[in-house]
Amino acid sequence: MRGVIMHAPGDVRVEDRDTPTIERPTDAIIRVTATCICGSDLWPYRGVEPVDHTPMGHEYVGVVSEIGADVKNVEVGDFVVGSFVASDNTCEICRAGYQSRCVHNVMMGSIGTQAEYARIPLADGTLVPTPGTPDPDLIPSLLAASDVLGTGWFAAVAAEAGPGKTVAVVGDGAVGLLAILAAKQLGAERIIAMSRHADRQELARRFGATDIVEERGREGAAKIKELTNGLGAHSVVEAVGTQESMDQAIRATRPGGHIGFVGVAHNVSIDGLRLFFSGVHLHGGPAPVRRFLPDLIQLIWDREIDPGVVFDLTLPLEEAAEGYRAMDERRATKVLLTV
Amino acid sequence: MRGVIMHAPGDVRVEDRDTPTIERPTDAIIRVTATCICGSDLWPYRGVEPVDHTPMGHEYVGVVSEIGADVKNVEVGDFVVGSFVASDNTCEICRAGYQSRCVHNVMMGSIGTQAEYARIPLADGTLVPTPGTPDPDLIPSLLAASDVLGTGWFAAVAAEAGPGKTVAVVGDGAVGLLAILAAKQLGAERIIAMSRHADRQELARRFGATDIVEERGREGAAKIKELTNGLGAHSVVEAVGTQESMDQAIRATRPGGHIGFVGVAHNVSIDGLRLFFSGVHLHGGPAPVRRFLPDLIQLIWDREIDPGVVFDLTLPLEEAAEGYRAMDERRATKVLLTV
Repeated sequence: MRGVIMHAPGDVRVEDRDTPTIERPTDAIIRVTATCICGSDLWPYRGVEPVDHTPMGHEYVGVVSEIGADVKNVEVGDFVVGSFVASDNTCEICRAGYQSRCVHNVMMGSIGTQAEYARIPLADGTLVPTPGTPDPDLIPSLLAASDVLGTGWFAAVAAEAGPGKTVAVVGDGAVGLLAILAAKQLGAERIIAMSRHADRQELARRFGATDIVEERGREGAAKIKELTNGLGAHSVVEAVGTQESMDQAIRATRPGGHIGFVGVAHNVSIDGLRLFFSGVHLHGGPAPVRRFLPDLIQLIWDREIDPGVVFDLTLPLEEAAEGYRAMDERRATKVLLTV
Repeated sequence: MRGVIMHAPGDVRVEDRDTPTIERPTDAIIRVTATCICGSDLWPYRGVEPVDHTPMGHEYVGVVSEIGADVKNVEVGDFVVGSFVASDNTCEICRAGYQSRCVHNVMMGSIGTQAEYARIPLADGTLVPTPGTPDPDLIPSLLAASDVLGTGWFAAVAAEAGPGKTVAVVGDGAVGLLAILAAKQLGAERIIAMSRHADRQELARRFGATDIVEERGREGAAKIKELTNGLGAHSVVEAVGTQESMDQAIRATRPGGHIGFVGVAHNVSIDGLRLFFSGVHLHGGPAPVRRFLPDLIQLIWDREIDPGVVFDLTLPLEEAAEGYRAMDERRATKVLLTV
């Protein structure tokens, strides 16, 4: 089969890979319908994380083509969505809603879903079938549920977005934009998008942002306080993962407020005394997307949300290298690869 | 009046100070019945925080001797307990339960309650009268409510201690010990005290600890995991405020678990990536003691809890210097000063 390999930073190629087979009785194989490039794929692309002839990709939707002997919850032919972390969905951590930290978790990035087929470990726990074969126009939104929507949703939940709350979102990438959509769905009263790009501001407003703040850092946080009687937002989503964005999030949150952070923190250090006196709640990490998948699939199926619009470039798998370039150069927010 | 002044690190004296008077119509003056020395008073005593002829103390119980023109909730003669932070209890932050971050907050440490009298700003919001004049043996427990009990209670609440939960407590000072009492009252199933001092272990067990772990740091966290099927505790209280104790708390908490941190963090730095992958909830800060005071006073009044036993040395105010020495040298956990 064909699949994406990152040979080295900046060097993405589509090559022949072995077609995956069932390795354990709990595995399933899916024929990938669509996959995509994640903001986190840019870390190795830019040389910030190590990479060496690595199969890429961890987001996927597709059709089950083969199941292991122990698989009971999905059948060959099912159209399925899964999280970027495979999980048994039965261990104590999964049952508490933290499937991305399942005691048997497998990172799908270690398998590489930017390919024609993918092996899905722990298929019963990981995969959620859609109610039927989706209309083609639903594919991007279902694919978004696999990571960026689920991650944005988790961030909004971790930030305790809800009725009566003012929510500020730091980061206008796909995850930040979808955290806005989530905050809106969760009933937030006011949603402040922090963005200085006109096209992303437009998408933010479409997803439910009521205010836009273009300032960053201390000035951005000061602006949030200005908009909230000097108190700060009740809920802040941090969807970038830099020192500046984390500082901005802490400064923008009122005492007793909540920060949901989902940007993979790179060289971020949080001063204990400052966190102490901020009085905020801080929660984040790799999103337990599986917790939210059934509800998200239903919302998409019922056409109540359209997260797929974050994909602003669609390319065939063979042109993955151009997709990476477009995201790296910020010509695209999020690239969908058709398989 | 007589009051404690810290001239410089290690130099504590009891001297004549001006007796306080009503400065604003929302003030009250109390005749202090008992006050105490806080673990945080040791930071300046040891030269870690600056100090220069500073009036000391922020914990207090006493009898109202004078009220300002606008004070309505307390009367002259009332026996009252107040938090270490004066708060209006009406602003948006107070109403959300974060009175220690009241928009009009006054730190009682800036007034100095280790004295015969103290001015209490925002008396209506700050002071809670007891149901009547307390029996003398209840005084230590009511005094504990003013800070250490309220702080330990907040830590347990921030760590989401409750039924079915395993709670680990890092720190066996007065606050850590009272967090154990709080976790017990909140219904925790299992409470692990981290302590290597026999006398404090005994008090920990009296307050409700079911297990004792003597190891510290990585070994301590490994022991907590061993006791919890390799997962870590659901709830961890961090009541020290050092890098080691914070690291230990993060390591000891399961993914999705909660850390309540109330140790005033000194030179503590939290690595963002590690926090990200830990998947914990982190919440702490100066405890909003006022939120819990009415319930805590009632529990003490009904003799359902006896937090006052954390005071293991009682001295007259005039001997405050010996009290500081005893705590500094760890001869005493917590010193009560009678006035």
